[in-house]
Amino acid sequence: MTASEPTAPPLRRRGERMRRAVLAAAVDLLSTQGLTGATVGAVARAAGVHETSVYRRWGTRENLILDALTTELDSALPVPDTGRVRDDLLGFFSSLARLLGTAQGRALLRLSVEHDATLEDRRGPYWSERLDRAVVMVRRGVERGELAADTDPGLLIEAVSGPLFVRVLLSGAELDDALVRGLVDLALRGALPRPE
Amino acid sequence: MTASEPTAPPLRRRGERMRRAVLAAAVDLLSTQGLTGATVGAVARAAGVHETSVYRRWGTRENLILDALTTELDSALPVPDTGRVRDDLLGFFSSLARLLGTAQGRALLRLSVEHDATLEDRRGPYWSERLDRAVVMVRRGVERGELAADTDPGLLIEAVSGPLFVRVLLSGAELDDALVRGLVDLALRGALPRPE
Repeated sequence: MTASEPTAPPLRRRGERMRRAVLAAAVDLLSTQGLTGATVGAVARAAGVHETSVYRRWGTRENLILDALTTELDSALPVPDTGRVRDDLLGFFSSLARLLGTAQGRALLRLSVEHDATLEDRRGPYWSERLDRAVVMVRRGVERGELAADTDPGLLIEAVSGPLFVRVLLSGAELDDALVRGLVDLALRGALPRPE
Repeated sequence: MTASEPTAPPLRRRGERMRRAVLAAAVDLLSTQGLTGATVGAVARAAGVHETSVYRRWGTRENLILDALTTELDSALPVPDTGRVRDDLLGFFSSLARLLGTAQGRALLRLSVEHDATLEDRRGPYWSERLDRAVVMVRRGVERGELAADTDPGLLIEAVSGPLFVRVLLSGAELDDALVRGLVDLALRGALPRPE
């Protein structure tokens, strides 16, 4: 914190403002036009910047889209800590189902499974990291004695999240609260402490 | 069964022989070269037929690949009936995990989630039909009293199959027998009859 901070290099401040404008335009186009409508040209036009500036910063259209979606969605999946594992999981997976019900969420998931050598390293981890965060809710349930000591937290999270992803990617079936409740309760009952 | 059957129209027999040769070549190329290597030209060359004959019969490369994979894999997912729901599910989902571990199985699943307007109507149903068949194993378990009367058979099948698909499509994590056993046991324990 020095007195010089408010006078940061104008170029850099302009750069950050440009970045936000471009990402906001990309998210907006993704929501209204889908993955195919969010071309670099369309995003640049909507953000009022040159197409070459977009390519200079992001390199490829895929990197731009990925940056837009992860920035936008990063706050969409909070991990609750209510003191009860069922409430935590219902909160988390309801958020995930809502997210996957939006155009942006679907776009990010679709993008995650499409072939693209330039993205290979960053897309898998996007979802893995978010699900890894969810594991802590199950661990806390085990520590509180709500769940069996031999519960595999990662497996439980996979059993609840897997069907949500598959419905979006493969079957196109609906994601609703009844589905989330059904999956959470099936997995939690399966992980209850058992009499020896 | 008439005496004339062995002398079926030669054109039709040639057509069926050609179809099988082309599909076998396609499966072979998919296994060794992946989805991108199985071009219509490469498949036609390997099968010893004209590229135009392939286009005449299948219309598009995607239809050819889909036909090849579904024909090849159609017998790969039998639905066991051992009299015990756990053995049935372990048998079925071990087959599914093995299938998804092969180049052909992965190719079919990848193909199922990629955008292609010409295939939209046929790919989702391929997996849905196969999982619908699995539902009967759970129903029989409910009828035998092994599982709670209010068990949702489709939900249970989704909870076990979802993570297998997601591992192939998103995380790239391994599919092994321990995973299949863990998922089956978690879901089955969750669906055990409960004291009132």
